[in-house]
Amino acid sequence: MIRIICIGKTEPIEIKKLKDYYLNLIRRYTKIEFIELKETSSQYKEHVIKEQCRKILSAIRYKPVLLDVFGRELSSVQFSIFLKENVKMGIDFIIGGVWGVCDEIKKFNSISLSRMTFNHNIIRIMLLEQIYRAFEPKYSK
Amino acid sequence: MIRIICIGKTEPIEIKKLKDYYLNLIRRYTKIEFIELKETSSQYKEHVIKEQCRKILSAIRYKPVLLDVFGRELSSVQFSIFLKENVKMGIDFIIGGVWGVCDEIKKFNSISLSRMTFNHNIIRIMLLEQIYRAFEPKYSK
Repeated sequence: MIRIICIGKTEPIEIKKLKDYYLNLIRRYTKIEFIELKETSSQYKEHVIKEQCRKILSAIRYKPVLLDVFGRELSSVQFSIFLKENVKMGIDFIIGGVWGVCDEIKKFNSISLSRMTFNHNIIRIMLLEQIYRAFEPKYSK
Repeated sequence: MIRIICIGKTEPIEIKKLKDYYLNLIRRYTKIEFIELKETSSQYKEHVIKEQCRKILSAIRYKPVLLDVFGRELSSVQFSIFLKENVKMGIDFIIGGVWGVCDEIKKFNSISLSRMTFNHNIIRIMLLEQIYRAFEPKYSK
Protein backbone atom coordinates (compact mmCIF):
# COMPACT_ATOMS: atom_id res chain seq x y z
CA MET A 1 0.00 0.00 0.00
CA ILE A 2 1.26 3.42 -1.01
CA ARG A 3 -0.42 6.57 0.26
CA ILE A 4 0.43 10.15 -0.66
CA ILE A 5 -0.53 12.59 2.07
CA CYS A 6 -0.61 16.18 0.84
CA ILE A 7 -2.18 19.56 1.48
CA GLY A 8 -4.94 20.89 -0.74
CA LYS A 9 -6.63 19.64 -3.88
CA THR A 10 -4.62 18.89 -7.01
CA GLU A 11 -4.95 21.93 -9.24
CA PRO A 12 -5.24 23.08 -12.00
CA ILE A 13 -7.41 20.57 -13.89
CA GLU A 14 -4.49 19.82 -16.27
CA ILE A 15 -2.40 18.52 -13.35
CA LYS A 16 -5.35 16.65 -11.86
CA LYS A 17 -5.93 14.79 -15.13
CA LEU A 18 -2.28 13.81 -15.34
CA LYS A 19 -2.45 12.61 -11.73
CA ASP A 20 -5.43 10.40 -12.61
CA TYR A 21 -3.59 9.12 -15.68
CA TYR A 22 -0.65 7.93 -13.53
CA LEU A 23 -2.88 6.54 -10.78
CA ASN A 24 -4.58 4.31 -13.35
CA LEU A 25 -1.21 3.05 -14.57
CA ILE A 26 0.15 2.40 -11.06
CA ARG A 27 -2.99 0.55 -9.90
CA ARG A 28 -2.05 -2.30 -12.27
CA TYR A 29 0.80 -3.03 -9.86
CA THR A 30 -0.13 -1.86 -6.36
CA LYS A 31 -2.70 -0.14 -4.19
CA ILE A 32 -2.24 3.61 -4.10
CA GLU A 33 -4.29 6.28 -2.41
CA PHE A 34 -4.20 10.09 -2.33
CA ILE A 35 -5.01 11.82 0.96
CA GLU A 36 -5.59 15.48 0.08
CA LEU A 37 -5.98 17.26 3.43
CA LYS A 38 -7.92 20.49 3.59
CA GLU A 39 -5.74 23.57 3.35
CA THR A 40 -5.76 25.77 6.46
CA SER A 41 -6.71 29.28 5.42
CA SER A 42 -5.01 31.89 7.53
CA GLN A 43 -2.57 34.69 6.90
CA TYR A 44 -0.43 33.57 9.82
CA LYS A 45 2.29 31.27 8.55
CA GLU A 46 3.04 29.74 11.97
CA HIS A 47 -0.63 28.96 12.52
CA VAL A 48 -0.99 27.34 9.07
CA ILE A 49 2.10 25.14 9.56
CA LYS A 50 0.95 24.05 13.02
CA GLU A 51 -2.59 23.22 11.93
CA GLN A 52 -1.54 21.42 8.76
CA CYS A 53 1.07 19.39 10.62
CA ARG A 54 -1.55 18.29 13.12
CA LYS A 55 -3.68 17.06 10.22
CA ILE A 56 -0.76 15.29 8.53
CA LEU A 57 0.34 13.59 11.77
CA SER A 58 -3.12 12.25 12.45
CA ALA A 59 -3.43 10.97 8.86
CA ILE A 60 -0.24 8.85 9.01
CA ARG A 61 -0.77 5.09 9.19
CA TYR A 62 2.31 3.59 7.55
CA LYS A 63 6.07 4.26 7.39
CA PRO A 64 6.29 8.02 6.81
CA VAL A 65 8.64 9.43 4.17
CA LEU A 66 8.83 13.19 3.75
CA LEU A 67 9.51 14.67 0.33
CA ASP A 68 11.94 17.48 0.99
CA VAL A 69 14.21 19.52 -1.27
CA PHE A 70 17.10 18.89 1.17
CA GLY A 71 16.31 15.19 1.69
CA ARG A 72 18.34 12.19 0.56
CA GLU A 73 18.89 12.07 -3.19
CA LEU A 74 18.26 8.65 -4.72
CA SER A 75 18.65 7.45 -8.27
CA SER A 76 15.51 5.97 -9.85
CA VAL A 77 16.94 2.48 -9.35
CA GLN A 78 17.62 3.14 -5.63
CA PHE A 79 14.11 4.59 -5.25
CA SER A 80 12.63 1.52 -6.92
CA ILE A 81 14.47 -0.79 -4.49
CA PHE A 82 13.34 1.29 -1.50
CA LEU A 83 9.75 1.23 -2.73
CA LYS A 84 9.63 -2.51 -3.35
CA GLU A 85 11.17 -3.23 0.06
CA ASN A 86 8.53 -1.18 1.87
CA VAL A 87 5.35 -1.36 -0.17
CA LYS A 88 4.03 -4.52 1.53
CA MET A 89 4.18 -2.96 4.98
CA GLY A 90 2.88 0.31 3.57
CA ILE A 91 4.43 3.72 2.87
CA ASP A 92 3.02 7.17 3.51
CA PHE A 93 4.71 9.79 1.36
CA ILE A 94 4.23 13.29 2.78
CA ILE A 95 4.22 16.41 0.62
CA GLY A 96 4.05 19.60 2.68
CA GLY A 97 2.12 22.73 1.78
CA VAL A 98 3.42 26.01 0.37
CA TRP A 99 4.94 26.99 3.72
CA GLY A 100 6.56 23.67 4.49
CA VAL A 101 6.10 21.44 7.53
CA CYS A 102 6.71 21.56 11.28
CA ASP A 103 9.87 20.35 13.04
CA GLU A 104 8.25 17.06 14.11
CA ILE A 105 7.63 16.08 10.49
CA LYS A 106 11.04 17.38 9.38
CA LYS A 107 12.58 14.67 11.59
CA PHE A 108 11.09 11.86 9.45
CA ASN A 109 13.16 10.06 6.84
CA SER A 110 13.19 12.28 3.80
CA ILE A 111 13.80 11.89 0.10
CA SER A 112 14.56 14.67 -2.36
CA LEU A 113 13.16 14.42 -5.91
CA SER A 114 15.23 17.45 -6.89
CA ARG A 115 17.43 20.17 -5.45
CA MET A 116 15.10 22.58 -7.20
CA THR A 117 11.88 23.74 -5.58
CA PHE A 118 8.82 22.63 -7.52
CA ASN A 119 5.20 23.60 -7.09
CA HIS A 120 3.63 21.13 -4.62
CA ASN A 121 1.15 20.00 -7.28
CA ILE A 122 3.91 19.17 -9.78
CA ILE A 123 5.77 17.27 -7.05
CA ARG A 124 2.75 14.94 -6.92
CA ILE A 125 3.20 14.18 -10.63
CA MET A 126 6.96 13.68 -10.27
CA LEU A 127 6.43 11.26 -7.39
CA LEU A 128 3.77 9.32 -9.33
CA GLU A 129 6.05 9.04 -12.34
CA GLN A 130 8.84 7.60 -10.16
CA ILE A 131 6.43 5.15 -8.51
CA TYR A 132 5.14 4.01 -11.92
CA ARG A 133 8.70 3.71 -13.22
CA ALA A 134 9.64 1.59 -10.19
CA PHE A 135 7.02 -1.03 -11.04
CA GLU A 136 6.92 -0.88 -14.83
CA PRO A 137 9.05 -3.81 -16.12
CA LYS A 138 10.05 -1.76 -19.20
CA TYR A 139 12.05 0.55 -16.95
CA SER A 140 13.43 -2.05 -14.53
CA LYS A 141 17.12 -2.74 -14.74
CA MET B 1 14.08 33.78 -26.41
CA ILE B 2 13.87 30.32 -24.90
CA ARG B 3 13.65 27.25 -27.09
CA ILE B 4 13.24 23.66 -25.96
CA ILE B 5 14.64 21.20 -28.46
CA CYS B 6 13.42 17.66 -27.88
CA ILE B 7 12.76 14.37 -29.60
CA GLY B 8 9.24 13.25 -30.45
CA LYS B 9 5.81 14.68 -29.80
CA THR B 10 4.63 15.42 -26.26
CA GLU B 11 2.48 12.46 -25.23
CA PRO B 12 0.07 11.39 -23.81
CA ILE B 13 -2.59 14.09 -24.27
CA GLU B 14 -2.63 14.75 -20.49
CA ILE B 15 1.03 15.84 -20.59
CA LYS B 16 0.51 17.83 -23.80
CA LYS B 17 -2.31 19.81 -22.17
CA LEU B 18 -0.19 20.59 -19.15
CA LYS B 19 2.63 21.68 -21.46
CA ASP B 20 0.23 24.10 -23.21
CA TYR B 21 -0.97 25.36 -19.83
CA TYR B 22 2.59 26.31 -18.81
CA LEU B 23 3.47 27.75 -22.22
CA ASN B 24 0.53 30.15 -21.91
CA LEU B 25 1.72 31.25 -18.47
CA ILE B 26 5.35 31.71 -19.55
CA ARG B 27 4.43 33.71 -22.68
CA ARG B 28 3.33 36.56 -20.40
CA TYR B 29 7.02 37.05 -19.61
CA THR B 30 9.12 35.84 -22.53
CA LYS B 31 9.14 34.21 -25.95
CA ILE B 32 9.28 30.43 -25.76
CA GLU B 33 9.19 27.84 -28.48
CA PHE B 34 9.10 24.03 -28.57
CA ILE B 35 11.07 22.27 -31.30
CA GLU B 36 9.82 18.68 -31.31
CA LEU B 37 12.09 16.83 -33.73
CA LYS B 38 10.85 13.71 -35.44
CA GLU B 39 11.82 10.52 -33.67
CA THR B 40 14.10 8.23 -35.68
CA SER B 41 12.51 4.81 -35.87
CA SER B 42 15.05 2.05 -35.91
CA GLN B 43 15.87 -0.89 -33.69
CA TYR B 44 19.56 0.02 -33.78
CA LYS B 45 20.39 2.20 -30.78
CA GLU B 46 23.61 3.59 -32.28
CA HIS B 47 21.83 4.56 -35.48
CA VAL B 48 19.01 6.30 -33.58
CA ILE B 49 21.42 8.30 -31.40
CA LYS B 50 23.51 9.35 -34.41
CA GLU B 51 20.50 10.42 -36.48
CA GLN B 52 18.78 12.26 -33.65
CA CYS B 53 21.97 14.08 -32.69
CA ARG B 54 22.40 15.24 -36.26
CA LYS B 55 18.87 16.69 -36.11
CA ILE B 56 19.45 18.34 -32.73
CA LEU B 57 22.77 19.89 -33.80
CA SER B 58 21.25 21.41 -36.92
CA ALA B 59 18.31 22.80 -34.88
CA ILE B 60 20.51 24.73 -32.42
CA ARG B 61 20.55 28.52 -32.86
CA TYR B 62 21.25 29.87 -29.36
CA LYS B 63 23.39 28.98 -26.33
CA PRO B 64 22.84 25.22 -25.91
CA VAL B 65 22.13 23.75 -22.47
CA LEU B 66 21.71 20.01 -22.17
CA LEU B 67 19.35 18.59 -19.56
CA ASP B 68 21.19 15.61 -18.15
CA VAL B 69 20.69 13.51 -15.03
CA PHE B 70 24.42 13.88 -14.25
CA GLY B 71 24.57 17.62 -15.08
CA ARG B 72 25.10 20.52 -12.69
CA GLU B 73 22.50 20.73 -9.94
CA LEU B 74 21.11 24.21 -9.39
CA SER B 75 18.62 25.49 -6.87
CA SER B 76 15.55 27.21 -8.32
CA VAL B 77 17.03 30.58 -7.41
CA GLN B 78 20.31 29.78 -9.17
CA PHE B 79 18.39 28.53 -12.21
CA SER B 80 16.35 31.73 -12.26
CA ILE B 81 19.52 33.85 -12.23
CA PHE B 82 21.05 31.77 -15.03
CA LEU B 83 17.88 32.08 -17.10
CA LYS B 84 17.55 35.83 -16.71
CA GLU B 85 21.22 36.35 -17.57
CA ASN B 86 20.89 34.42 -20.83
CA VAL B 87 17.34 34.85 -22.07
CA LYS B 88 18.04 38.02 -24.06
CA MET B 89 20.77 36.36 -26.12
CA GLY B 90 18.66 33.20 -26.36
CA ILE B 91 18.87 29.73 -24.82
CA ASP B 92 18.29 26.35 -26.42
CA PHE B 93 17.49 23.69 -23.83
CA ILE B 94 18.09 20.21 -25.18
CA ILE B 95 16.21 17.15 -23.94
CA GLY B 96 17.54 13.93 -25.46
CA GLY B 97 15.48 10.94 -26.51
CA VAL B 98 14.96 7.63 -24.70
CA TRP B 99 18.47 6.47 -25.62
CA GLY B 100 20.28 9.67 -24.72
CA VAL B 101 22.52 11.82 -26.88
CA CYS B 102 25.83 11.56 -28.74
CA ASP B 103 29.23 12.52 -27.30
CA GLU B 104 29.27 15.86 -29.14
CA ILE B 105 26.10 17.00 -27.35
CA LYS B 106 27.26 15.52 -24.04
CA LYS B 107 30.10 18.08 -24.11
CA PHE B 108 27.66 21.01 -23.88
CA ASN B 109 26.98 22.78 -20.59
CA SER B 110 24.47 20.65 -18.76
CA ILE B 111 21.97 21.11 -15.97
CA SER B 112 20.33 18.36 -13.94
CA LEU B 113 16.70 18.80 -12.86
CA SER B 114 17.02 15.68 -10.70
CA ARG B 115 19.35 12.79 -9.93
CA MET B 116 16.38 10.57 -10.76
CA THR B 117 15.62 9.56 -14.32
CA PHE B 118 12.28 10.91 -15.49
CA ASN B 119 10.33 10.16 -18.63
CA HIS B 120 11.45 12.63 -21.32
CA ASN B 121 7.91 13.97 -21.60
CA ILE B 122 7.69 14.71 -17.87
CA ILE B 123 11.10 16.43 -18.03
CA ARG B 124 9.48 18.92 -20.43
CA ILE B 125 6.88 19.77 -17.77
CA MET B 126 9.50 20.04 -15.00
CA LEU B 127 11.58 22.40 -17.13
CA LEU B 128 8.54 24.55 -17.97
CA GLU B 129 7.59 24.79 -14.31
CA GLN B 130 11.09 26.00 -13.42
CA ILE B 131 11.06 28.53 -16.26
CA TYR B 132 7.66 29.83 -15.14
CA ARG B 133 8.84 29.97 -11.52
CA ALA B 134 11.93 31.93 -12.60
CA PHE B 135 9.80 34.72 -14.07
CA GLU B 136 6.74 34.69 -11.79
CA PRO B 137 7.19 37.50 -9.21
CA LYS B 138 5.27 35.46 -6.60
CA TYR B 139 8.16 32.98 -6.48
CA SER B 140 11.03 35.44 -6.84
CA LYS B 141 13.18 35.88 -3.78
